[in-house]
Amino acid sequence: MPPYNAPVQDMQFLLHDVLGVSGQDIAGYRDLEASFTAAVLEEAGKVARDILAPLNASGDREGCRLENGVVRTPAGFKAAFEAVKQSGWTALDCDPDYGGQGLPYIMGTAVGEMFVSANMAFNMYQGLTHGAYSAIHAHGTSAQKATYLPKMVSCDWTGTMNLTEPHCGTDLGLMRTRAEPQTDGSYKITGTKIFISAGEHDLAENIIHLVLAKAPGGGEGTKGISLFIVPKFLVNDDGSLGARNGVAVGSIENKMGIHGNATCLMNYDGATGYLLGELHKGMRAMFTMMNEARIGVGLQGYAVAEAAYQASLAYAKDRLQGRDVTGTKNPSGPADALIVHPDIRRNLLEQKSFVEGARALTFWGATLIDRAARSKDASAEGLISLLTPVIKGFLTDKGFEMAVQAQQIWGGHGYIEDNGAAQFVRDGRIAQIYEGANGIQALDLVGRKLAADGGKPIMALFEMVKGFIKDNEGDARMAPFLGPLKAASKDVQAGAMYFMEHGLKNPNNALAGAYDFMHMMGHTVLGLMWARMAKTAYAGLDAGTGEAAFLNGKIITGQFYMARCLPATAVHLARIKTGGDVVMSLPEAAF
Amino acid sequence: MPPYNAPVQDMQFLLHDVLGVSGQDIAGYRDLEASFTAAVLEEAGKVARDILAPLNASGDREGCRLENGVVRTPAGFKAAFEAVKQSGWTALDCDPDYGGQGLPYIMGTAVGEMFVSANMAFNMYQGLTHGAYSAIHAHGTSAQKATYLPKMVSCDWTGTMNLTEPHCGTDLGLMRTRAEPQTDGSYKITGTKIFISAGEHDLAENIIHLVLAKAPGGGEGTKGISLFIVPKFLVNDDGSLGARNGVAVGSIENKMGIHGNATCLMNYDGATGYLLGELHKGMRAMFTMMNEARIGVGLQGYAVAEAAYQASLAYAKDRLQGRDVTGTKNPSGPADALIVHPDIRRNLLEQKSFVEGARALTFWGATLIDRAARSKDASAEGLISLLTPVIKGFLTDKGFEMAVQAQQIWGGHGYIEDNGAAQFVRDGRIAQIYEGANGIQALDLVGRKLAADGGKPIMALFEMVKGFIKDNEGDARMAPFLGPLKAASKDVQAGAMYFMEHGLKNPNNALAGAYDFMHMMGHTVLGLMWARMAKTAYAGLDAGTGEAAFLNGKIITGQFYMARCLPATAVHLARIKTGGDVVMSLPEAAF
Repeated sequence: MPPYNAPVQDMQFLLHDVLGVSGQDIAGYRDLEASFTAAVLEEAGKVARDILAPLNASGDREGCRLENGVVRTPAGFKAAFEAVKQSGWTALDCDPDYGGQGLPYIMGTAVGEMFVSANMAFNMYQGLTHGAYSAIHAHGTSAQKATYLPKMVSCDWTGTMNLTEPHCGTDLGLMRTRAEPQTDGSYKITGTKIFISAGEHDLAENIIHLVLAKAPGGGEGTKGISLFIVPKFLVNDDGSLGARNGVAVGSIENKMGIHGNATCLMNYDGATGYLLGELHKGMRAMFTMMNEARIGVGLQGYAVAEAAYQASLAYAKDRLQGRDVTGTKNPSGPADALIVHPDIRRNLLEQKSFVEGARALTFWGATLIDRAARSKDASAEGLISLLTPVIKGFLTDKGFEMAVQAQQIWGGHGYIEDNGAAQFVRDGRIAQIYEGANGIQALDLVGRKLAADGGKPIMALFEMVKGFIKDNEGDARMAPFLGPLKAASKDVQAGAMYFMEHGLKNPNNALAGAYDFMHMMGHTVLGLMWARMAKTAYAGLDAGTGEAAFLNGKIITGQFYMARCLPATAVHLARIKTGGDVVMSLPEAAF
Repeated sequence: MPPYNAPVQDMQFLLHDVLGVSGQDIAGYRDLEASFTAAVLEEAGKVARDILAPLNASGDREGCRLENGVVRTPAGFKAAFEAVKQSGWTALDCDPDYGGQGLPYIMGTAVGEMFVSANMAFNMYQGLTHGAYSAIHAHGTSAQKATYLPKMVSCDWTGTMNLTEPHCGTDLGLMRTRAEPQTDGSYKITGTKIFISAGEHDLAENIIHLVLAKAPGGGEGTKGISLFIVPKFLVNDDGSLGARNGVAVGSIENKMGIHGNATCLMNYDGATGYLLGELHKGMRAMFTMMNEARIGVGLQGYAVAEAAYQASLAYAKDRLQGRDVTGTKNPSGPADALIVHPDIRRNLLEQKSFVEGARALTFWGATLIDRAARSKDASAEGLISLLTPVIKGFLTDKGFEMAVQAQQIWGGHGYIEDNGAAQFVRDGRIAQIYEGANGIQALDLVGRKLAADGGKPIMALFEMVKGFIKDNEGDARMAPFLGPLKAASKDVQAGAMYFMEHGLKNPNNALAGAYDFMHMMGHTVLGLMWARMAKTAYAGLDAGTGEAAFLNGKIITGQFYMARCLPATAVHLARIKTGGDVVMSLPEAAF
């Protein structure tokens, strides 16, 4: 396994040439000059390469252990966590009022990608803390913020989110965990939560659990649910740690991957909890965490694929096997490198064009989040809300597929655990499942987001594509981008139209095509990203700025994506148009 | 995990209604009456369910261990292997001259599917023995056959195939293992082989290794390669076991899956070997094993998907989550079962329609193998030779994809190893890699099989499709099958035409589209299978024979495949037509 190499050049290209961050009118963006972001990214890349990546395979092999109620993380995790904390990476995009560095979310995204590529399981300890931080920051009282946020920004205390119970995951209305109000305004929380990432571990002094539970009087289903802060150790008024709370890990899961992260069953036995946000409006507060978490999971999808791509590329350049049919490339060696073979290049280009397109989409999405949060821009909010299920669902599906393709390049050696290619497949797999399985993302997209705000966000996206095409159709070099983009965008529109026409008659006509719609939209927005990147690359070449080899590589990679990947929208549309009956008519007994 | 349930009804439908085996003019087929095959399949299904399946998860957890040169298989494997041997399953389709039962290959295929579904890792011990048996049967002297075959038929001795070396897998011309001729006509074999499935274990008295090695005088590359029989214990003239041979296991691999099968590094240190077949024509002899092995691996692809489907279907019927949007189906329960949701049904129908189509293709392929071998039918030989890379490549790619989809239905529970869904994914993954990685299958198909025998086999396939369409276009009920089949077949023809027109100019124009062509052809032959099954089902309904619910289920499942899956050929064709430049033009340094 070659060392992880942070894609700083590509990130700088996105931040400055494509997205022009320092010129955007978002608070804090003016400071994001190229030299500054380069310094941050270079430094983060070193942490990823030198501190996190070396623990990836060993963390996978060793996994977490539960011993007498204590979860031991793999060797080296504690020291690495301290190093990451000490150098301030956990505080990067947090609020300065609570010890954060106040950088925009886009910078947290870029650094996060590196850390996930280097060691996904490790980075979850910090990632989940950030999600819990955001929920408390958005919904907490000033006292709660003062009590919890500074310690969570520094990751002296970590955070969790507790939704799932043994009998309910997606359908939270079935929840059984109860919250009983106490005379002092606190609650007693009782119930069992499962699949709690980082629910217990040895990296932090305290763990702040955010727990969904039903408090009396809220009614049936999800309406009765509230969100509670349940610290592992109660916090005294002076901020010191008090009594151990009534929450304990019951067991940890033996999982297919992300072995370095402890996935816990948590027992709440009359644990003291504090209401976070409004009573009986816990779902709304939880969604603050979930939307951020979903984009973070989409990032995991492509970040793991990036690491897998790097490893498979190194193997393809190194491994000698067979000869180039058009003439040997390595006459002095016993064979040519794998990378001369067209099918190996097809495989590598699918990986590369996906990862770079996904990075562009995620970075663009991060600027939308910043614009929504820092400039209170409702249209940015609408757009990122529309794109969130696409980022989560499409990027994790494709990211996994690409990790599998990367493994394939290694042949039999990819199936051997010691070589590392298999771990990317096993780790990446979870991203399709957690934070709302991808089928749920598709339903969220089609059932909720398409029609949100009278369809304004999706119309805005179509207009954006149309405008881009119109602005660039004078440039003949852009034809290989504009044609496929136009066709794909038409397919998405036709799909949305089909849902409108037939979904009212029977919602199954829409729901049976939701998954295809998510993928169709994913391809199309990646196509838009590639068209933008190509335009930027041509502009750089015309102006003689930037590295020509890099810019030409961008254009060729983009041409591959447009020619080879974007046509997939046609088959997704064809599938959508077969409607609901073909899916619903088989009697249950005949399955 | 529900118990494995052998699909006897579907197999009987294929054997008798679709393929009409007992009416086919192939030696031994007349005996395959419905009552006879039902008895065999029922009995095999019990072995699969009661003996093999219960060891699947435990074998995965425990794995194999190497202790002082001895490989210990997981608890229970030895007793189960004895049970399978004692009841004659290993001898099923072997030559009666050597103790076999002489049933056709089609019966071995049907039973093999069950055993693989129940426990893929376990069944490999027998499966590889069968491959080695076939090679000795086809190429051995009478003395060799008499010495080795009876013990291999009974699996008292097992077999292996040794091709790969650390530095060469696909490119066997780089092989370093040497064979030195001895004065007594034997050879001394020296070298290291890796990835040797069942290379060492505790299930058999002796292990018969078939080893590729270079003997002097054969020239460079693959031309110098010969095939040798290298027994673990030399065999005395009276058939008893003699001295331990100079071959030993060096290590066993820690793999992503198939933990119950020992994957060995084998050291040959002047081991005594006996030439099998002609000197310097080892590749040809090895291909006897490889073609059989490739179809066997294709079978693994869908057999694992069948097991994963059964498990995910049971989960979808059992797990209560959410409500049917068109009206609750389980008003007295807290929620409806997962299977009411359109996206869950889409997922399940993709699995079901793939597995049943793949079974039909594989069973049809098995009759072609029988026809080629037992009736010396050259056109059957040509057709199965064409279909072999499709069966291996397409069925293992899709089989893996379907195992992943099955796991997805379990949500987070699918990621937990103890629940079993993850094992199907990890086990099934290897089928895409070994016996020629799927990229190699695609090259074999496009570079060799398409043009084989002047293109007769592919033309015969096109004619078969055309004939079927013509014969059935009078039946309006068949329209949902014939339209998509015609379109898909046209796409395949257009792809082949593109290769002919542009491949001569530059072979990369064909090689860069080979993988897509393999998938396009896979979908089309599965479409042909579904059209045949639908026709048979309608005939059964018209005649009032067969179970109406089963036959109607077949038709609806087939309609799903034709409507939802077959349109994929269009995008594969579009990708093929983008040619080789889009894949070849990125400079190596720009990856």
